[in-house]
Amino acid sequence: MPNITNDPNSVLDDIAEKASIFEGKEAVRTILREIFLNGTIGTKSLSRKLRMPIPTVAATRKELEKIGLISREKKGAILTEKGLIFVNEALGIYYLESHYCKKCESTGIALPHEAEKLIAKQRLYSERRPKPQTEIDQAFGRPITAIRRAYLMLENNDLEGREILLIGDDDFTSLAIAQLKTNAKITVLDIDNRLLEIIKEISTENNFKINCVTHDLRKPLPENLMNRFDAVLTDPPYTIPGLELFLSRAIQALKNESGRKIYLAYAHRPPKMQLEVQSSLTKLGLAILQLIPGFNLYEGAEMHGNTTYISILSTTESTKPLITLDFSEKIYTGELNPTIREYQCKNGHVSEIGSSLEIKNIEELKEKGCPVCGDKDEFTRVSRRKIKENAK
Amino acid sequence: MPNITNDPNSVLDDIAEKASIFEGKEAVRTILREIFLNGTIGTKSLSRKLRMPIPTVAATRKELEKIGLISREKKGAILTEKGLIFVNEALGIYYLESHYCKKCESTGIALPHEAEKLIAKQRLYSERRPKPQTEIDQAFGRPITAIRRAYLMLENNDLEGREILLIGDDDFTSLAIAQLKTNAKITVLDIDNRLLEIIKEISTENNFKINCVTHDLRKPLPENLMNRFDAVLTDPPYTIPGLELFLSRAIQALKNESGRKIYLAYAHRPPKMQLEVQSSLTKLGLAILQLIPGFNLYEGAEMHGNTTYISILSTTESTKPLITLDFSEKIYTGELNPTIREYQCKNGHVSEIGSSLEIKNIEELKEKGCPVCGDKDEFTRVSRRKIKENAK
Repeated sequence: MPNITNDPNSVLDDIAEKASIFEGKEAVRTILREIFLNGTIGTKSLSRKLRMPIPTVAATRKELEKIGLISREKKGAILTEKGLIFVNEALGIYYLESHYCKKCESTGIALPHEAEKLIAKQRLYSERRPKPQTEIDQAFGRPITAIRRAYLMLENNDLEGREILLIGDDDFTSLAIAQLKTNAKITVLDIDNRLLEIIKEISTENNFKINCVTHDLRKPLPENLMNRFDAVLTDPPYTIPGLELFLSRAIQALKNESGRKIYLAYAHRPPKMQLEVQSSLTKLGLAILQLIPGFNLYEGAEMHGNTTYISILSTTESTKPLITLDFSEKIYTGELNPTIREYQCKNGHVSEIGSSLEIKNIEELKEKGCPVCGDKDEFTRVSRRKIKENAK
Repeated sequence: MPNITNDPNSVLDDIAEKASIFEGKEAVRTILREIFLNGTIGTKSLSRKLRMPIPTVAATRKELEKIGLISREKKGAILTEKGLIFVNEALGIYYLESHYCKKCESTGIALPHEAEKLIAKQRLYSERRPKPQTEIDQAFGRPITAIRRAYLMLENNDLEGREILLIGDDDFTSLAIAQLKTNAKITVLDIDNRLLEIIKEISTENNFKINCVTHDLRKPLPENLMNRFDAVLTDPPYTIPGLELFLSRAIQALKNESGRKIYLAYAHRPPKMQLEVQSSLTKLGLAILQLIPGFNLYEGAEMHGNTTYISILSTTESTKPLITLDFSEKIYTGELNPTIREYQCKNGHVSEIGSSLEIKNIEELKEKGCPVCGDKDEFTRVSRRKIKENAK
């Protein structure tokens, strides 16, 4: 272990390495700062606030505990005396106030009073959703996220008098938009008929007008949806082929002119992977007008710290789809990056999870509980490995 | 004139064409919506809120007035009865509430109470700035902008215990950062020695420690500033060569590792030009982590609606400077896009302004007043033309 006060960067590097997190030393520094700012904070909150995967935060916390910089209390991690000295004196971090905007949750969109009622209704609608199909990257957005997206579109002049398309809508954003009672014409396209049936039901009950189309996006867009829409919202699979496919279809659905907007939800990724996303957007000829980290909150999606960003993209004179025909390549996370993860319950029993196994993800494991002792309280990831393509 | 209620899109197109604005019909629609939302609103506020150049807004307003959709009151533009019907019935716009967050001005950074004192001090510092040299694209940021930038960097873990570089600092952001009294080590690099002298003076008076370096960025970075910094802030010339030059130097100044951040202020541009910016960033291997429209406010810079965005960029494993040696190409707006603009005072006298003329910009014209009658109240742009390269 390097000298704690003289060489803080090596200490951080060391912890990042031991925790096997590929976010590196800056992630460790940020985690320490956030614990300092909060006094005590749980792993889940840390993960969400810092937009880091829960396993990254959990593994780092464990290493920080081992070298005595933090200890665990009931409410979560807390700095030890040694940890406090390290944060203050070695890292130079003293500032105790956050400038995160509580009013709009730093999204820039302040919800009006009546939004509470809309969120309550949205919650009732959301409860009627079936189980998410994680193999097609479903992860259900929270009611507040759907409502905030609707207001974001309204604020940006993209609802009133507009024709809009939702490409995939496991978040029920269409219902949130309908709740605002603008005259927006809403079309929802989804591969999952179960979701569309419920959207239709709720639509009928509330006299919303939502046009639902069951469609596998790997097939070309139906002719009658081409060059028609003013704006599109999509929360695609967080893979490059998934992104390029969904955005290519979005481009074809939009009116063929500059200035049409796409609201894109996407995972916070390490800079290298975000650069790949940006490179795809540039190839598609889509300009990023705004990018709001932490905008979307999910009920599941722990791998993404339960949160993703939203970006407002605009078509330009050089916008063009990269895919126009049938698409037969893999697009979902589980297809492209099949992994097996081992989780340990607090009694020490290890369970394997992965998209090719019976228990597909941590959310499912938590719901079913440890197969040995049934405990549902707390699981720690102990390993993660990629499955080779051939082994599938 | 197309039928106002049956073919609203053609009406909007028609106005955009007559006003010769290249932002197109969507700009007209947005302007109408903003007037509707506000009741009465002046050109300057419209321009700032919609992040559009003042001449674009002024020209559109004039055409809207001509066809009787708006009229002018003392406080600014207001919809006529015909205009209200058009906005409501033809455009489908009824919603009267804005969801802009007043607490953080939709920047995501809520200023604490003590910020008021800091802004007041920053105002005193700013008053000591000499006249902006518009030929090198200087435009002075407002005190609140410098303070908010400092809090943004603090919030993002980029001040405490960090070594930071400001590439160009006509906004005096260095002084705002120093006011926060973190232990950040600040270096300012600027071509304009007048500004650096004042920063040094204020620094001495307040016992701030700011390292000032006079340097023309077209020359390579001084050896002792290479691979040294944790973060850079820059508000470069809003031209592609200017952007690429400033960011190339920034990359070389940063520690050579992934995850180092650049805070980039840049003008809101039509999607096509924003795509060019994005393309440059992608070539430089810089990932956009966040993009906050309207973050920066200026005392001048009317051509940009007095506001620009801020974007937080991160270095990645593929980051590389595009320029490492001497750079002899043109980088400033006036060099690259020399234009002559004709403005008319309210008494009808026309003045020519341009970077190659005696009166360089609208700010100067307003200060000096109309050369014929001395009137300073109100100028309307009547024409704009590019000067051919050879004619210079």
